[in-house]
Amino acid sequence: MMQASTYPLLDASEVASLVLERTPVLGAEELPLADCWARVLAEDLVAPSDLPAFPSSAVDGYAVRAADGGGRLEVVGESAAGRPFPGPLPGHAAVRILTGAVLPVGADCVVMVEETSEHDGWVEVPTRLEAGRNFHRVGDDVRRGELVLQAGEVLGPAELGLAAALGFPRLRVHRRPRVALLTTGDELVEVGRTPGPGQIVDSNRWALLGALQEAGAEVSLLGIAPDDRVALRSLVQDALLDHDVLVSSGGVSVGSHDLVKPLLEELGEVHVGRVRLKPGKPFTFATLPEGRLAFGLPGFPVSSLVTFEVFVRPALRKMQGHRALQRPRLRVRLGYEAKAAGDRTEYQRVTLVREDGEFVARTTGSQSSSRLLSLAGAHALVRVPPGDRGIPAGAMVEAIVLSLPA
Amino acid sequence: MMQASTYPLLDASEVASLVLERTPVLGAEELPLADCWARVLAEDLVAPSDLPAFPSSAVDGYAVRAADGGGRLEVVGESAAGRPFPGPLPGHAAVRILTGAVLPVGADCVVMVEETSEHDGWVEVPTRLEAGRNFHRVGDDVRRGELVLQAGEVLGPAELGLAAALGFPRLRVHRRPRVALLTTGDELVEVGRTPGPGQIVDSNRWALLGALQEAGAEVSLLGIAPDDRVALRSLVQDALLDHDVLVSSGGVSVGSHDLVKPLLEELGEVHVGRVRLKPGKPFTFATLPEGRLAFGLPGFPVSSLVTFEVFVRPALRKMQGHRALQRPRLRVRLGYEAKAAGDRTEYQRVTLVREDGEFVARTTGSQSSSRLLSLAGAHALVRVPPGDRGIPAGAMVEAIVLSLPA
Repeated sequence: MMQASTYPLLDASEVASLVLERTPVLGAEELPLADCWARVLAEDLVAPSDLPAFPSSAVDGYAVRAADGGGRLEVVGESAAGRPFPGPLPGHAAVRILTGAVLPVGADCVVMVEETSEHDGWVEVPTRLEAGRNFHRVGDDVRRGELVLQAGEVLGPAELGLAAALGFPRLRVHRRPRVALLTTGDELVEVGRTPGPGQIVDSNRWALLGALQEAGAEVSLLGIAPDDRVALRSLVQDALLDHDVLVSSGGVSVGSHDLVKPLLEELGEVHVGRVRLKPGKPFTFATLPEGRLAFGLPGFPVSSLVTFEVFVRPALRKMQGHRALQRPRLRVRLGYEAKAAGDRTEYQRVTLVREDGEFVARTTGSQSSSRLLSLAGAHALVRVPPGDRGIPAGAMVEAIVLSLPA
Repeated sequence: MMQASTYPLLDASEVASLVLERTPVLGAEELPLADCWARVLAEDLVAPSDLPAFPSSAVDGYAVRAADGGGRLEVVGESAAGRPFPGPLPGHAAVRILTGAVLPVGADCVVMVEETSEHDGWVEVPTRLEAGRNFHRVGDDVRRGELVLQAGEVLGPAELGLAAALGFPRLRVHRRPRVALLTTGDELVEVGRTPGPGQIVDSNRWALLGALQEAGAEVSLLGIAPDDRVALRSLVQDALLDHDVLVSSGGVSVGSHDLVKPLLEELGEVHVGRVRLKPGKPFTFATLPEGRLAFGLPGFPVSSLVTFEVFVRPALRKMQGHRALQRPRLRVRLGYEAKAAGDRTEYQRVTLVREDGEFVARTTGSQSSSRLLSLAGAHALVRVPPGDRGIPAGAMVEAIVLSLPA
């Protein structure tokens, strides 16, 4: 006997909201700057001092009073980066100054070396000098007390540089989700072994590992799930001790020899068992005790990656404190006729090609749920709503951008 | 005495080409799939077998002959994933079949479980059945001998899944460049220490570390350069033993107490010492023996990150075998008047905002070379050519995209 799934068939957008509502934001940890790249800041950074903290030269040249322009000025010393000229600038004099060095008290202008000539301890400077030229004033870049970076910002190069410049050697950032990845299916063999009759290589493990890494997760590979209820239960329970999320693939279609879904029902609450989504109908989502989540992805390779994109990646980003949970969208022209998939929302895979200043979305070919080539090299997903109509070729659509073409 | 630089002032585009021409592509290494994410493939992958290797069911249901539609068929067994039905399908019979399982010989169609009812070992199937429905044929996804992935492709989730599905447990990928990062300047103190008069925190180290990580490099932090010629020479020579690239920041302006540039002239050949670029005029590029490269970036924080973007990042990508060396471009409307910087090409930092279906580039405010806030949160760079004209507000420009806004 075989029965159709008794899980209600939910709309894809409803499921996406439901997953995010039940996804917690993970706590923060304090890390040295060296480990903070691409993390999300968990605290506001307020400037404890002005930047620059002293008036500093923007060029190599001579620090002078603008009013002394046009004359020959005595060079009374030098201000180098880290070695300021001691004392104020005397009248009708110049101080040799290097980029980044302190402007001496009394100077109001730096003349670029290219505009001067120095001989025997005297320098000639141009006639018209403008006060305020060629140096940075105290607080020009950042004012003491200014909110410089906000909680929720992603720490890229400029943000890390700012944090260092303001004197923060360590930052509070959100924890990365720890994900245990499990693949299920009696047909699976390890990559490198020759599949027997009816067997296939476990490829989802490696595809999902890449997708999880891209989404910022720390991944533990649990391998292929044991075929034994007790062994599986103990593996999953052990993994949940030190992981935030369980991701499994395969074994979620109705008739499969599926031990994962009953286990999730036993350990927590299954909220989603089927979705009006193509590919990816048998997507499963459960909450487990202590804020842990479980995602059961379909076994077909494209289904598992598309449901990861639509449901899992935004959740992992929420966990890490990201503000932007979704991929960026781009308005593109549809370069083919996108037929609708009956009552299901379909995510079609496309490449983007530039034509006449706009992007045209081209299909990656057969959209079969087993054909990974439909996703390899794809730049974007095009969401085709359920119904009879589809989207005509030439229409403008909002593509979900995976990577912009160069 | 202080003299202007004697290095010729080169055009930014000329320097960009010159750097890439002298940048080698690094060799390959063989890695297990677990370590291949985001690497660049160094070999073509040709399919050693068909995918799928057997006709496999796309759904849960019954494997039948389409010609037997409309009848009650005896259920003679089951084909589960990994456990094929032994032998061919007898006439007027059905085999219960699960998603991913082998289609028995003789069957030409799978009926979805939702369209059937099974009682006492017999199943009723609809009248009109279509041969070829609901299963994947041998080679539908990949044909034996097909070139599936080409050298130069980046290994994302789908590519890793494909490699595994085809039976490759290890892949040849390009090596990541090993970069030694050095900051120079007598004014620098370590983050966490309080700067004395005229001193500043070494922030470039942390900004460039992030930029290097984003570009795929493996980074060794050499810290702040010693103020002693012999000590510096020995530090750099030791680092070059097991690094491909030396990146230094600071100390490249004309009057500085600069030990790095003389050392590069001694160890190799300095090709670039000044560029018509704003920010980033004192950019330095040298080649060293055995294909090693040295980049001397300016000390101002924005100058160092912009010269990294324009010159260093493409070189690091070439080293890793990437095809796309440059950031993607996007046609956007300029939301402000971009004034030109005299005889230098300027890279202005902008955020992108969606308005009426197009992106508008807004300035990040003061473009001072020391103001990291002009780069924090920036989505793109706008290249303003040298000259007197600049670019009027409202014009369409090709923005260099750092990250698309969500």
